[in-house]
Amino acid sequence: MSLSVAQISAKIEATLEGVGNGEIRSVAGIRDAGPGDITFLSNPRYGADVGRTSASAVIVGHDWKGSCRGALLRVDNPDRAILAVAAMLAPPEIDMDPGVHLTAVVAEDVQLGDDVRIGAHCVLEPGVRIGAGTRIGAGCYVGHATVVGCQGRIYPNVTVRERAIVGDRVIIHSGTVIGSDGYGYTVETEAGVPCVQKIPHTGSVRIGDDVEIGALVAIDRARFGETRIGNCVKIDNLVQIAHNVIIEDYCGLVAQVGIAGSSRIGSRTVIWGKAGVGGHLDVGEGCEIAAQSGVMKDVPDGATVMGQPARPIQKAFDMRASVQRIPRMRKRLTELEERVKQLEALLGDAAEAESSGE
Amino acid sequence: MSLSVAQISAKIEATLEGVGNGEIRSVAGIRDAGPGDITFLSNPRYGADVGRTSASAVIVGHDWKGSCRGALLRVDNPDRAILAVAAMLAPPEIDMDPGVHLTAVVAEDVQLGDDVRIGAHCVLEPGVRIGAGTRIGAGCYVGHATVVGCQGRIYPNVTVRERAIVGDRVIIHSGTVIGSDGYGYTVETEAGVPCVQKIPHTGSVRIGDDVEIGALVAIDRARFGETRIGNCVKIDNLVQIAHNVIIEDYCGLVAQVGIAGSSRIGSRTVIWGKAGVGGHLDVGEGCEIAAQSGVMKDVPDGATVMGQPARPIQKAFDMRASVQRIPRMRKRLTELEERVKQLEALLGDAAEAESSGE
Amino acid sequence: MSLSVAQISAKIEATLEGVGNGEIRSVAGIRDAGPGDITFLSNPRYGADVGRTSASAVIVGHDWKGSCRGALLRVDNPDRAILAVAAMLAPPEIDMDPGVHLTAVVAEDVQLGDDVRIGAHCVLEPGVRIGAGTRIGAGCYVGHATVVGCQGRIYPNVTVRERAIVGDRVIIHSGTVIGSDGYGYTVETEAGVPCVQKIPHTGSVRIGDDVEIGALVAIDRARFGETRIGNCVKIDNLVQIAHNVIIEDYCGLVAQVGIAGSSRIGSRTVIWGKAGVGGHLDVGEGCEIAAQSGVMKDVPDGATVMGQPARPIQKAFDMRASVQRIPRMRKRLTELEERVKQLEALLGDAAEAESSGE
Repeated sequence: MSLSVAQISAKIEATLEGVGNGEIRSVAGIRDAGPGDITFLSNPRYGADVGRTSASAVIVGHDWKGSCRGALLRVDNPDRAILAVAAMLAPPEIDMDPGVHLTAVVAEDVQLGDDVRIGAHCVLEPGVRIGAGTRIGAGCYVGHATVVGCQGRIYPNVTVRERAIVGDRVIIHSGTVIGSDGYGYTVETEAGVPCVQKIPHTGSVRIGDDVEIGALVAIDRARFGETRIGNCVKIDNLVQIAHNVIIEDYCGLVAQVGIAGSSRIGSRTVIWGKAGVGGHLDVGEGCEIAAQSGVMKDVPDGATVMGQPARPIQKAFDMRASVQRIPRMRKRLTELEERVKQLEALLGDAAEAESSGE
Repeated sequence: MSLSVAQISAKIEATLEGVGNGEIRSVAGIRDAGPGDITFLSNPRYGADVGRTSASAVIVGHDWKGSCRGALLRVDNPDRAILAVAAMLAPPEIDMDPGVHLTAVVAEDVQLGDDVRIGAHCVLEPGVRIGAGTRIGAGCYVGHATVVGCQGRIYPNVTVRERAIVGDRVIIHSGTVIGSDGYGYTVETEAGVPCVQKIPHTGSVRIGDDVEIGALVAIDRARFGETRIGNCVKIDNLVQIAHNVIIEDYCGLVAQVGIAGSSRIGSRTVIWGKAGVGGHLDVGEGCEIAAQSGVMKDVPDGATVMGQPARPIQKAFDMRASVQRIPRMRKRLTELEERVKQLEALLGDAAEAESSGE
Repeated sequence: MSLSVAQISAKIEATLEGVGNGEIRSVAGIRDAGPGDITFLSNPRYGADVGRTSASAVIVGHDWKGSCRGALLRVDNPDRAILAVAAMLAPPEIDMDPGVHLTAVVAEDVQLGDDVRIGAHCVLEPGVRIGAGTRIGAGCYVGHATVVGCQGRIYPNVTVRERAIVGDRVIIHSGTVIGSDGYGYTVETEAGVPCVQKIPHTGSVRIGDDVEIGALVAIDRARFGETRIGNCVKIDNLVQIAHNVIIEDYCGLVAQVGIAGSSRIGSRTVIWGKAGVGGHLDVGEGCEIAAQSGVMKDVPDGATVMGQPARPIQKAFDMRASVQRIPRMRKRLTELEERVKQLEALLGDAAEAESSGE
């Protein structure tokens, strides 16, 4: 698939500066782009790269100042424009073959909606229901009585255990595990020997509509009741969501985040990479939790917190600044000690002088 | 499955306050419970929720003061009671179908104990032995000569590589990988170019009895000898255990913990979520390592450590408190400088006065 | 497989001290070794263990001073010698059966090089090409038009999505996912309701030659263009590599590291366990990023950084030392306040005396 610069410019309603007959075959990031590529400037961080790139065309904002070797395409919103161009040039989307692959093991009573496609070596246990248009990639396991909604996409090698409920238009990436038992034990020490009993996890997992779950995510089933992921929650790779956690609508959980048991995350909250939230906590709506933070107590609505333990962000920055001031403070302290010592010496002399003068 | 409040009360030997004829269908957390649910109060954090819940019944301690809309069931140990009730109301446990699924690929010489059940699309390589009563879910891979004990449960899509030894009553959750090669290379630079050689990992993994391993856990095989997980060790999701690590009996490793190569964790030690332990370290018995800590040196028996780097918890708290005192210290320092300046001025005057008085 | 101490000594050209007729069956770490084992001393941390071990033989350096119960084998490089011995005593390597397993689902147009071996229940989609000598373990999924080079080894239950390019001699451990969609959305709020759109990921992943990727690693495909792993990069378990990241040649990424989108890691840089690198950053060549660090800005070539946020290591250590000095500083400050108070009192008296003396 290829288009001329002029064709692309017309389709995205850009103002074209430079030559329009170059052929564009693909979209690339500004630092990787070469001849035949179109790229774009959105993050000002990369401004200097526009002059350096050998891309055949660069999409920039109307007010961008500078020049480049290739054509310039000026638009209102370079981010949106490049997405449109990427869609024009994208390789054809790959869909699964229709129907149920003959190597899939599908229990007799499984209900499949219209145009459901099931990949090779899948296992769908008794009582499973899959909504219309959903695709389940090769090697997935769907446990007893689990329900998956319409128009979903489950990539290869996903495991969804029994009695889970997954909404419509949900995307689950490869390797993810939904509905594993939560981590819970009772420990009683008898005659000095610990007696550890597993707490049965008879609950399940409920996932809302329009959720996307990355690769290698673990979402545990509830001890009882449900672990619940709201609508339009977006979860990145390698995230841990423990038993009985509730994630409200529109939250974002970036890679390697972990949420401990029974905590609740209010709607529209974003948790950045590698942050952790302790157990039995309430994080409010519209919060932001900085990367690598450790949330150890409730977070009120709208707060931005950072650090280990997590604190309101201004306080966290103040504390960092404080620590950086210590060397200067030590210097001032030492100087002051010296000055006091001199005063004491002087005053000692003065006192002596006075006493001797009496 | 449903029971009346009175029936439940009788079975858990509770003192019933309120109406006993409500029908209970399920157990729920106190914030999620509604009519038809029974819930409980164990964590005092949720005390105020008892008055607010619309649950049909609440299990509380004998000394709990307050009231609720539903029935109150007073018991000695609400935690234990709710587990008993959850068991009464639980959906019937799902067991695998008997025998070896016809799509499983089981080598000729594999030895299966009594009532072993093997799921669809499993692969059991030559020399594998599986003890009586163990279930292996769909899509699992068990490598050459690996031995799994009795009464175990391996959930779908687990990989256990060759020559591992897994004890009795071991539970392994989906996606977990046991016996992958450890991370080890020799690097020699020749004429400025690094020459990187993989160190072969000819060792294996040994897992004790009554171990539970969460979803998406990686346990590497030893360089030589064994990576060893003791008896009754409980491992949460997404944990990393490197080559030649030794985890002694009764340890707990919470989600996303990582233990670097050749370290040894003493018995009954608990490592909380996201903490890391460096390589070649000894962590003692009965230790506690706080969430997100970074253990960089040996930890003596019984110690509780926290922070990055991890320190004895009191020291870590003291350091945090120290940092919070800096702004106040700066203020005191500035005031003191002012006072010394005044003293110097005064004393300068005095000295001058004196000298002029002479 | 077993060899006498004397046989081993001869093969590694060691100087043998002690009895050479003991039979050695396996290699073990110095703390685990027993009769019939050979062990070694490389890390001086374990020096005292040489005297305590009941191993039948210990490999040490020529200049090591001390004795042990078993034989001593002196060599130039104990590390290299023990690897050679481990290779002699290793169980025979396990290779897969030749050919394509009859349960594998291989599209008609897939191209397999010489002696490629494909395990049970694998799925190879249309357009896949696998180079000569490569082994793909049971249960792997290889997506449309993905190319894997020669002499590679992909362990069971790996997922490689469509259009990825994997070089020669690449090892990928179980559970790993390559080519999942990156985490990217556009969010526009309309009438107070967020409208979240998935950004299509039409790019792919390119992995160089001689790369090793651990278990349960997630490498996302690019938004457009490529996520790129250079030659001879070594990645440990549970690592996250986001869309459009570039890892240059010879880098090492230790377990549980995470690299956010569009960042570039220069060649020969080592990132230690659990460290994170933020998005759109440049980390230079030959850098070292300490465990658990959080890189929030560019890192120049050759730098070693540590901490959250990551700083040059000397600065990070200085800051730690600063914090530890706070209690002492507080004490000095309090003493100084006392001394100034006394001075003020004295000077007040003096001033009074003076004024009364006038």
